[in-house]
Amino acid sequence: MTGGYGLLVADLIGVAVFAASGASAGVVKRLDLFGVAFVGFAAALGGGILRDLAIGAVPPLAFADWRYPVTAVVASVAVFWLHPTLNRVRRTVLLLDAAGLGLFTATGTLKALDAGVPPVGACLLGMLTAIGGGLARDLLVGEIPVVLRRDLYAVVALGGAILITILHGLGHTGLVTLVSAAALIFGVRVIALHRHWSAPIAAP
Amino acid sequence: MTGGYGLLVADLIGVAVFAASGASAGVVKRLDLFGVAFVGFAAALGGGILRDLAIGAVPPLAFADWRYPVTAVVASVAVFWLHPTLNRVRRTVLLLDAAGLGLFTATGTLKALDAGVPPVGACLLGMLTAIGGGLARDLLVGEIPVVLRRDLYAVVALGGAILITILHGLGHTGLVTLVSAAALIFGVRVIALHRHWSAPIAAP
Amino acid sequence: MTGGYGLLVADLIGVAVFAASGASAGVVKRLDLFGVAFVGFAAALGGGILRDLAIGAVPPLAFADWRYPVTAVVASVAVFWLHPTLNRVRRTVLLLDAAGLGLFTATGTLKALDAGVPPVGACLLGMLTAIGGGLARDLLVGEIPVVLRRDLYAVVALGGAILITILHGLGHTGLVTLVSAAALIFGVRVIALHRHWSAPIAAP
Repeated sequence: MTGGYGLLVADLIGVAVFAASGASAGVVKRLDLFGVAFVGFAAALGGGILRDLAIGAVPPLAFADWRYPVTAVVASVAVFWLHPTLNRVRRTVLLLDAAGLGLFTATGTLKALDAGVPPVGACLLGMLTAIGGGLARDLLVGEIPVVLRRDLYAVVALGGAILITILHGLGHTGLVTLVSAAALIFGVRVIALHRHWSAPIAAP
Repeated sequence: MTGGYGLLVADLIGVAVFAASGASAGVVKRLDLFGVAFVGFAAALGGGILRDLAIGAVPPLAFADWRYPVTAVVASVAVFWLHPTLNRVRRTVLLLDAAGLGLFTATGTLKALDAGVPPVGACLLGMLTAIGGGLARDLLVGEIPVVLRRDLYAVVALGGAILITILHGLGHTGLVTLVSAAALIFGVRVIALHRHWSAPIAAP
Repeated sequence: MTGGYGLLVADLIGVAVFAASGASAGVVKRLDLFGVAFVGFAAALGGGILRDLAIGAVPPLAFADWRYPVTAVVASVAVFWLHPTLNRVRRTVLLLDAAGLGLFTATGTLKALDAGVPPVGACLLGMLTAIGGGLARDLLVGEIPVVLRRDLYAVVALGGAILITILHGLGHTGLVTLVSAAALIFGVRVIALHRHWSAPIAAP
């Protein structure tokens, strides 16, 4: 895969956005500053830690590269101080979250494929990279994870992961593939938000 | 250990049954189709993922062999559509769950022993393989895990794991050992269900 | 690092204390004997399991060395039977818990550094070794983890981990460093308890 500077910056934006979502949840639950930072860390890096453990990349990136945890903690502390103004930028946060979804799915799927994980498993790990942090966030604050309850979120990630795996199988493994797929996931997620698409719930 | 076709079929039956238990919990909690499938996946494969990470078998079987996740998801989606009729077959589901308990304990313990884990650790990992999925299922839907609260369930698995470890130490490592131990765990679990055996609770 | 007999004894005291904290939580929640022992096991060994997975030390110590799980289970069962008298020794339990915090932070940080984890990651893993068990305990019994909500607990561990990492960088890697750092964490934690120090909570 690739490790270019632009990619790192994009990755860290994803970390910051997901950390902000975790920190917001922590503020709402009246956690203290440490708790807010911890939930931010888990939301930003929990999915990637699970992926790295599953592909045998130890220590996981969250512990091997200081820029990841520091970005997560700085973003969380910023939310701790600034949260009263965050409601005004809620639309921006949702857009950034969609960007994070696209990016984490793309990098997660490609890392799994590059580590030799077969296609079905790589799709699952790519999706888990993107949704794992949100799962950790919700479990830590005592909620049933929102990703399991409503909204087209994980399914968009899974669709993107399948597309990436197909492109990878056709020999498209470079940065263009990654960015295009991430952009597509971003776009579909934004449309799903706008049109309130959701998955069905079982008949009673 | 062994990888025969009969064993694979038996293993996948265990996956399907545990997935069904997870999917049922998801339907009860009004999760959407994705949530139901995800909890089914976690219930079926969470214990095995933990075991594989602990013995260094990466990527875990749940990601390395597509038949495992596909079986879990198909069983979960089936429950999503068919759940109103499931109450009528509740006795069958409990029997299949007991079969899954026996099988997952037996394969989990033997895999740990074969990976060089010492006896006490292998017994614990065998039991965790069998109960880990149920733990994940209950935590995801916001419940204190049922396996910690009542019923002789995990203790039956632990007893079976100890028996398997002793047999393994005596040189019995083949398919017959595995199937006999799984059958014994199944039998004791069915008796425990029938007679309402349970572990003690501390005096107030 | 070091594996002396004195260190093992100290480590097992930490395991017993953390197991007792988990078992107490299980008793309060009316779990059965198995549930009490399981939560005790998770509280004592969950943090170390996460650390060992993250540094690639498989199988984790909790499964590789029988003295760790046996100590956790014996301590948990003792609490199950003796819990009515535990309130009288609550001050002692808090002191022992502070000792466990210091010791687990120190050993966790040094193990991560010795495994080649860079400084920031090693500090995080050292802290996670110390607080991970408490997180697992609270999640298993359906509570938002107390370490995220109040009290100077994790921050003391993190400060100790940073100190240990600096000392390690200066070439101090022996038993004296470990014990001194653990003692310092213990002391600060006891003062924090005594003076009711706590981290800030966000303005509403």
